[in-house]
Amino acid sequence: MPSEFELIGRYFARPTPSADLGVGDDAALLRLAAGHQCVVSTDMLVEGTHFVAGTDPRRLGWKTIAVSISDLAAMAARPRWATLAVSLPDADDAWLEGFAGGVHACCEAHGVELVGGDTTRGPRNLCATVFGEVPTGQAVTRAGARDGDDIWISGQPGRAALALARLLDGTSADGTLPAEFVEALEAPRPRLALGLALRGLASAMLDVSDGLLGDLAHILECSGVGARLVDGWLPLRALVDCGVDPQRAREALLGGGDDYELLFCAPVAARSRVASVGASVDTPLHRIGTVLAEAGRLELALDDGRCRPLQPIGFRHFTGDKIDN
Amino acid sequence: MPSEFELIGRYFARPTPSADLGVGDDAALLRLAAGHQCVVSTDMLVEGTHFVAGTDPRRLGWKTIAVSISDLAAMAARPRWATLAVSLPDADDAWLEGFAGGVHACCEAHGVELVGGDTTRGPRNLCATVFGEVPTGQAVTRAGARDGDDIWISGQPGRAALALARLLDGTSADGTLPAEFVEALEAPRPRLALGLALRGLASAMLDVSDGLLGDLAHILECSGVGARLVDGWLPLRALVDCGVDPQRAREALLGGGDDYELLFCAPVAARSRVASVGASVDTPLHRIGTVLAEAGRLELALDDGRCRPLQPIGFRHFTGDKIDN
Repeated sequence: MPSEFELIGRYFARPTPSADLGVGDDAALLRLAAGHQCVVSTDMLVEGTHFVAGTDPRRLGWKTIAVSISDLAAMAARPRWATLAVSLPDADDAWLEGFAGGVHACCEAHGVELVGGDTTRGPRNLCATVFGEVPTGQAVTRAGARDGDDIWISGQPGRAALALARLLDGTSADGTLPAEFVEALEAPRPRLALGLALRGLASAMLDVSDGLLGDLAHILECSGVGARLVDGWLPLRALVDCGVDPQRAREALLGGGDDYELLFCAPVAARSRVASVGASVDTPLHRIGTVLAEAGRLELALDDGRCRPLQPIGFRHFTGDKIDN
Repeated sequence: MPSEFELIGRYFARPTPSADLGVGDDAALLRLAAGHQCVVSTDMLVEGTHFVAGTDPRRLGWKTIAVSISDLAAMAARPRWATLAVSLPDADDAWLEGFAGGVHACCEAHGVELVGGDTTRGPRNLCATVFGEVPTGQAVTRAGARDGDDIWISGQPGRAALALARLLDGTSADGTLPAEFVEALEAPRPRLALGLALRGLASAMLDVSDGLLGDLAHILECSGVGARLVDGWLPLRALVDCGVDPQRAREALLGGGDDYELLFCAPVAARSRVASVGASVDTPLHRIGTVLAEAGRLELALDDGRCRPLQPIGFRHFTGDKIDN
């Protein structure tokens, strides 16, 4: 079997022209642009928790990098470099070739260079750290939402959750889901162009990894505000049109994680510019609600004019279950 | 059971005054000193591969951070921040309290702030990424060793390997090893003060994680040189004085990993300054050989004047065995 160093050389070491020193020393050396902050995020994907055994290795490699790139996109920051630590039960060449191919494809698609990492034996575990930069003071955090701001969501949340449910149930109760649903789960596309274009427009932003409501609750908590979502504005149509039961579609949209869509707030005065940004980066944007002054208040406005309170829904790794709405 | 967010809040989130934004958003925001490069290293520790089940959690927390700090020390770089991703089979409060205590103790001892991470359920796996800074162009890489340079090793390599052997064998064939041997294995002390003090003196440097000979081979390969070690100069005495068989002591010293001592080269003209540095940071330094012009040549000078060729020895995770000398 190949050694750790042979594995790294064969599958992971690639030219890193934008790094002063890449793979192959004790540490990588990187030079950030003047007047920029360094932006860092790390994510760990575990077999049996985040993905099932037998998941296509190329998609898994893509996703391993994509989820951290998505975090930088949600800060309106440009990702530039990544490190990757992997624990693998064996050195399966076919698996490694697919996995590394997905890693490099995702890096190249987003202007990221793999500058270091660690390769070891153990239960399958994939940990990426992505570094990038943002002009000092221009990152969009979770803390800037203000009373009256619009609440926006990109793309089509809910697809990954519906694909996962089908994968876990082995059922086809939802009919045959389009391939994009499975791709949303297995090879999510970070909304990088959108995140960068929202710099200076969004007041608060994050990427939806734990579920729209659960992640919205993070913005509300960090910003000290509340929110009213409007049921009629939720992008349910595309899910229902695929044969998904409407109530199940709503649950997937509000509670399902792993789509990595961007959830953000922006002042009403920026509404037309936000819409233009969506068009310019070819990403559907849905305005789904309004920020309220009352901290922690979270409600859904129904078609008949009534409002009902909402509880955050999100996946919790250690409680192991969903908190129902 | 607590949620992921409660775990992070209770055990891992600490004030991060040197970061513009720490734990709790999509990514951390850091500001590097002007005229510095960003230095990054990541390491993954896996239960059953790098440590045995039941290892003291506080020491494990310390080591998780220490091994990456050691990488930065070996670049003559100052560590400043860390992210930590952990996969745990359960949310055991006593274990988490010990582990997090060790993480924070190691961070504080080395001026590092924990600025982000990820917490998930799965087989026990600990992945730290440490980043810091070095004045541009002043990092010490593996590539600068030159013909005639002295070869130096810090402290006492071999202790961790002897402690590990005793742990795995369950034997006490080596007599009762001092507590420092077990501490070298379970809670290694990164040679940070030494690494920083060698900036401008060392021509090439790394930390010994895979074994002195195996890691020396990395310097030789990166620098395009060879090396002659002198048997009589190897710091065997402290091992033998603890009752370890001399041949076993030599094998542990040359082939044992995990001591995180610094192995470095420096010009002969810097010899007295190197010795002064060792004294000033209270770290024993041993001059153990000389760099040779011939690329890839690696030999041991014996007391009788003969030289015998050496093969690199090091632990290989995927071959699973040692290459004997």
